Amino acid sequence: MSFNEIANQFVKYYYDTFDSNRSGLAVLYRDNSMLTFETNQIQGAAGISEKLVGLPFQKVVHRISTFDAQPAGPDGSIIVMVTGEILFDEETNPQRYSQTFHLVPEGGSYFVLNDIFRLNYA
Amino acid sequence: MSFNEIANQFVKYYYDTFDSNRSGLAVLYRDNSMLTFETNQIQGAAGISEKLVGLPFQKVVHRISTFDAQPAGPDGSIIVMVTGEILFDEETNPQRYSQTFHLVPEGGSYFVLNDIFRLNYA
Repeated sequence: MSFNEIANQFVKYYYDTFDSNRSGLAVLYRDNSMLTFETNQIQGAAGISEKLVGLPFQKVVHRISTFDAQPAGPDGSIIVMVTGEILFDEETNPQRYSQTFHLVPEGGSYFVLNDIFRLNYA
Repeated sequence: MSFNEIANQFVKYYYDTFDSNRSGLAVLYRDNSMLTFETNQIQGAAGISEKLVGLPFQKVVHRISTFDAQPAGPDGSIIVMVTGEILFDEETNPQRYSQTFHLVPEGGSYFVLNDIFRLNYA
């Protein structure tokens, strides 16, 4: 698979899982993974999963607007930047967001080393 | 310097140079550097510089809204995601943008291996 296909599959899996079963995201991170979620900085799969699962909304839907990937080094890692809209609970006004992932190969698959998420306020 | 200070200095230098003298950005890229600028994909410092210098506006001002950095691996590389506003020429309505940089160390300094830029349309 090309880096673009890998990134595309990852992004689809990530947001499908985020929107249906957030606890399923834990397997994507490792102990050295980092998440910046708005102004919060968390390191390690356990803390990242706890943060994501504990976010104060029940229902969430991501809609991707743009998705761009690039190979990020000779080790086969990939950088992905996503922009899109996110809809929380019963709200009808989506909020825009930007998110960057750094995917690193591991045993035939990939894990998320870096994850930066920001809402885009007007 | 911490990764955060390095990223902060880089971002300031990058946008100051972009807004005052775009041709000065060429030194930040190498032959293996990649730029995704909206739907355009360019590899190599020469092509990237040509693209940036040739963008069809004379005056441009970037205003940073958020700036987040993370260490991106044992080699000392750094991932930076910026969100902000950009104002072209005589326009008075800024457009929102998102940009991701992957900075890789080289001889006491850093170069841009990955650069992904997208305007955020509402």
